Amino acid sequence: MNTMNTTGYLRNWSETYKNDLVNNIMPFWLKYGVDRDNGGCYTCVDRDGSLMDTTKSVWFQGRFAFTCAYAYNNVEKKQEWLDASKQTIDFIEKYCFDTDGRMFFEVTAEGTPLRKRRYVFSESFAAIAMSEYAIASGDKNYAVKALNLFKQILKFINTPGILQPKYEISLQTKGHSITMILINTASRIREAIQDPILDEQIDKSLESIKNDFMHPEFNALLETVGPKGEFIDSIMGRTINPGHCIETAWFILEEAKYRNWDKKLVETATTILDWSWQWGWDKEHGGLSNFKDCKGFSCQDYAHDMKFWWPQTEAIIATLYAYQATQDSKYLEMHKMISDYTYSHFPDKEHGEWYGYLHHDGTVSQPAKGNLFKGPFHIPRMMIKSYTLCEELIRLRTT
Amino acid sequence: MNTMNTTGYLRNWSETYKNDLVNNIMPFWLKYGVDRDNGGCYTCVDRDGSLMDTTKSVWFQGRFAFTCAYAYNNVEKKQEWLDASKQTIDFIEKYCFDTDGRMFFEVTAEGTPLRKRRYVFSESFAAIAMSEYAIASGDKNYAVKALNLFKQILKFINTPGILQPKYEISLQTKGHSITMILINTASRIREAIQDPILDEQIDKSLESIKNDFMHPEFNALLETVGPKGEFIDSIMGRTINPGHCIETAWFILEEAKYRNWDKKLVETATTILDWSWQWGWDKEHGGLSNFKDCKGFSCQDYAHDMKFWWPQTEAIIATLYAYQATQDSKYLEMHKMISDYTYSHFPDKEHGEWYGYLHHDGTVSQPAKGNLFKGPFHIPRMMIKSYTLCEELIRLRTT
Repeated sequence: MNTMNTTGYLRNWSETYKNDLVNNIMPFWLKYGVDRDNGGCYTCVDRDGSLMDTTKSVWFQGRFAFTCAYAYNNVEKKQEWLDASKQTIDFIEKYCFDTDGRMFFEVTAEGTPLRKRRYVFSESFAAIAMSEYAIASGDKNYAVKALNLFKQILKFINTPGILQPKYEISLQTKGHSITMILINTASRIREAIQDPILDEQIDKSLESIKNDFMHPEFNALLETVGPKGEFIDSIMGRTINPGHCIETAWFILEEAKYRNWDKKLVETATTILDWSWQWGWDKEHGGLSNFKDCKGFSCQDYAHDMKFWWPQTEAIIATLYAYQATQDSKYLEMHKMISDYTYSHFPDKEHGEWYGYLHHDGTVSQPAKGNLFKGPFHIPRMMIKSYTLCEELIRLRTT
Repeated sequence: MNTMNTTGYLRNWSETYKNDLVNNIMPFWLKYGVDRDNGGCYTCVDRDGSLMDTTKSVWFQGRFAFTCAYAYNNVEKKQEWLDASKQTIDFIEKYCFDTDGRMFFEVTAEGTPLRKRRYVFSESFAAIAMSEYAIASGDKNYAVKALNLFKQILKFINTPGILQPKYEISLQTKGHSITMILINTASRIREAIQDPILDEQIDKSLESIKNDFMHPEFNALLETVGPKGEFIDSIMGRTINPGHCIETAWFILEEAKYRNWDKKLVETATTILDWSWQWGWDKEHGGLSNFKDCKGFSCQDYAHDMKFWWPQTEAIIATLYAYQATQDSKYLEMHKMISDYTYSHFPDKEHGEWYGYLHHDGTVSQPAKGNLFKGPFHIPRMMIKSYTLCEELIRLRTT
């Protein structure tokens, strides 16, 4: 693409993201997700928005509250977005914490606890909801709450005995998920309130990603390694989740940008993006697949070759970010590949919002708009972030 | 089919099952599965039998030991089958029990514990391995061990506080899995040793299947219900697993046969089979799908429309059994449908054994022969049981 084409390309996507967010995704969830009786939001809705299950995902209470405030802060100052964020945070504070300070995983419509798990993702999403709402509302109390919750998260994961380990003592592992989510959680909170523990955790996670999870002998970032980054030669230890790695890549690019485009971080991030794209991109059908085995054995997750919505959205953000970081046009080409695939397969033109689960060949596996794992988060976050990135890129090119 | 055709049809399948078991399935697992260094068996093998992961599934130690003894008892008195059963039971007794009497879920090749879960399926499979080996070897000690283990299982599931519940106290559920597995576990053990608790548990499970899990308002047997069989109107509560239901149907037919073809049990079993076939059979591509929602909402399990090996094998047994129970030729037609589909899609003609995981359209999703959930159990059990049923049916027709 030449300069003119590039600007036009970015302008086109910027408009698409904003339009899709404002006129499709947010109205869908404000209409079918928000629970105007009990507060909070539902996510288990079928293709046409009809409620399939009133169980409330605690992850999604935080994710939706974050998304609404994030859209408010970056796209448009719509009061209904701010209100939706606030009423969901109220629901979280009222119903989603157990007496030990840890959070539940599922609650009923009315807020009765249903399930608690051994992780701290509920807490992470609640924390970014609070910090983002603090920015949107100007109410600093929520920034303090977010920071306190972050401190709790660190206590939970660093105090042996609080979170029940999944494996026996003979199998010591550490996971990419918690390592990467803490980068994003800390960096989101830092936008609202500064504290050295946030920067320390970001440094610690970045170190661990680079030294422990990145395995150059496979050109891969692995999901599970030993305590010192040891390669675990099992189905679990060999698993690559390309979409997850690509999400990490843009979290790192975001941190690189915060550090005035720290060169080493940009290099780490683009290496992860390049590796993971190579593993994940389906050359036959297009799109990013879910899982690969780093030694090329048959992948054991049932959904290994399916195309889920969220890896595609992470790749849209990551390729735009990598282009912003490097000006390397290959990332714009990759952005075009993933965008063309995503926009031609996922949006539901009849009922709005996007499908979440496609077969390997791109046909729809099931058309529901949400469940406990899909809801108003990855898609709107992609639109908000990518809109912002496109606008920044356009400004640079036209000034 | 007329009488001659039917006899020929049954003879053909009888030979196929026996031949496939003796010359394909058992040799594959004796070659690639048996661990001749440490005892026990591996199951995580790729398409060509190469070992992908040395982690040993405790379920499969019991399942393999059972399968070998069951083949020995019903098909051929091969010493290597008896030996494989014994050395796997030795591994189980040496390494697979925790100090509290409960069993692990995964151990290393050498038997170091890796993971323990909140269920008693490891114990159930170990128990049927021991009772089947008792019959094969004539060593009554193993029948006593099986019975004692069964008593332990009942203690574990009936004593609050031993198995950690998955949900909070507000969500009381009971599961089809444990209810149905206890029918089969008890009836297998009863072949080796009699005890009133076995019959009592079978009665209790049958009652529960009929009164709690069967929901005629949906023509469905549900996987999860309330403590008194209450319908739970959530994604989880609406889930139908047709293959699982069809497995239950033949467990019940086995019990009906033991009771001189108890009419009520035959009716219950064939009702479950008919309902579940209706839900599960894929009219477009053939084969049984994994999951359905009883209210017709979009099914949320990623693998909902995939074709797994084991539901097909359960349906082969169940349709033959239903034909034996009722002489209704519709079950022979169903047997032909499921057999034609299964034998044209699952066997790997190049490397032996069967694929486990097909896409909804019947193409292979991943070609490995085993993992922690697929290994030497459903396929050989189907061949042993169906061979036996065909032989019984042929004898009846020709005498």
